[in-house]
Amino acid sequence: MKNVTIVGTGLIGASIGLALREAGFAGGITGIDASGDELKAALMMSAIDTAARSPDEHRAALEAADVIVLAVPVLGILNWMRQMAPHMGAHQLVTDVGSTKTRIAELAQELMPGRCLPGHPMAGKESGGAALAEAKLFRGATWIFTPLHASTEIEMSWRGWVERFGAHILDLPPERHDRICAWVSHMPQMVSTAMSAMLEDEFGDSPELRAIGGRALREMTRLGASPYSMWRDIAHTNEAPLAETLHTLEQRLQHMRENLKTAELREEFARANEFRRRIDPLR
Amino acid sequence: MKNVTIVGTGLIGASIGLALREAGFAGGITGIDASGDELKAALMMSAIDTAARSPDEHRAALEAADVIVLAVPVLGILNWMRQMAPHMGAHQLVTDVGSTKTRIAELAQELMPGRCLPGHPMAGKESGGAALAEAKLFRGATWIFTPLHASTEIEMSWRGWVERFGAHILDLPPERHDRICAWVSHMPQMVSTAMSAMLEDEFGDSPELRAIGGRALREMTRLGASPYSMWRDIAHTNEAPLAETLHTLEQRLQHMRENLKTAELREEFARANEFRRRIDPLR
Repeated sequence: MKNVTIVGTGLIGASIGLALREAGFAGGITGIDASGDELKAALMMSAIDTAARSPDEHRAALEAADVIVLAVPVLGILNWMRQMAPHMGAHQLVTDVGSTKTRIAELAQELMPGRCLPGHPMAGKESGGAALAEAKLFRGATWIFTPLHASTEIEMSWRGWVERFGAHILDLPPERHDRICAWVSHMPQMVSTAMSAMLEDEFGDSPELRAIGGRALREMTRLGASPYSMWRDIAHTNEAPLAETLHTLEQRLQHMRENLKTAELREEFARANEFRRRIDPLR
Repeated sequence: MKNVTIVGTGLIGASIGLALREAGFAGGITGIDASGDELKAALMMSAIDTAARSPDEHRAALEAADVIVLAVPVLGILNWMRQMAPHMGAHQLVTDVGSTKTRIAELAQELMPGRCLPGHPMAGKESGGAALAEAKLFRGATWIFTPLHASTEIEMSWRGWVERFGAHILDLPPERHDRICAWVSHMPQMVSTAMSAMLEDEFGDSPELRAIGGRALREMTRLGASPYSMWRDIAHTNEAPLAETLHTLEQRLQHMRENLKTAELREEFARANEFRRRIDPLR
């Protein structure tokens, strides 16, 4: 692996560049980003060493890369894959960091069989942008891959770098990835957005809310600050698993609502307590 | 106010004893608790100066008090009110720290008109018990009262002490208190319990959950560790407002589920973002 091109030099893309350098990668790292500012920030912090700005420069950077890392939102990843597929060489690898994997895996099988290793590092921050990028962002984090074929040499090489970032690799089928993420990430996001939106409708600028709301309120609505721009792509590309978890939650809430005064409520608390003991065994 | 008797010397009760002393209260503070250990812990840390252990000592402590503070769960508060009402003197004040107020206010009007000032300090910790009590627990916190009549002299005195604890007093009608708390505290609790219980059913001891679940999962299920013993009383005494908020959330989740690919989802995120800007204007 001599040349890497990172498409999307925001928080994750720029952190990958920094992590590569910290892990000893001595080849070229070229960045592509729709935002000139993000590209400049990534360049300034040496997350990339070359910025490809024009369509011609983009094409050259993609052609010269051994590994192309797509680090934009999911619909953007799908678009880049469609654009680059006709021009790809036999030994190039495309990998990505998208939040959902089934659609990406399907398109990869269709357009670039044998040349794509979809991935998803479980790392991030509350805010995005190259300015917050860090070489150690992936240290101790799980990095999921959804391999579509036996590993090629260039894939083994990329996996080696990811391990040198300090990440733990976990291989999953794309559908399993999307189903688990619907449960542990996408559903919690939608719940927090729903609760925040309801509270906005109910209380508006009531001073009482601010006086009475405590840690529980702040914590349960924190994700309500998340931007639609990112979640639109996730909702679009993981609709069925996400809809299923939301429907399950609606039914569970109805069950609790109808049993606020019965022993069923005790059972729900017991199940929940059990789950928390698994997650936080020391508490 | 010369003598105070605190019924329930756990986290809140013992913290009230410590806060009284720190604020300069020089009278007697007697404690009553079903747990000999909690009573002993409160005595050791000087949150109380006398422990009333037998039914006779309980009766004497309640008779001698100018202010009786009921600091047990709500159904316990209702029970103590029923027991003590026939024996109360005309100048005694009963106040409490219960999580719901309508039922307590109703019983007060029925059994001890003119002698009860229901209250609810918005303070606490993840775990209970006298061992975690602190004089500064109420500093900067909102302390809600739901007054049932024009303030009496002893009520004014108690309000003065609460202000000296560093708390901000907010007066609300009991029904308004219960409705707001259903929205900002009780509903978030039930949602976190429901999500935790669902995840326990879905994943059990799957190692994938632990590898993939991040901050969002931990945060949205943290309240799932809350004990049924406390929430049973809240669900029992605030059923209608809580059921209404849960039903509203069910409908909101259904709406989002049916609009994962439409512009309606953008609207929900925009409302949620607006709410978070009110709660955390600096972000």
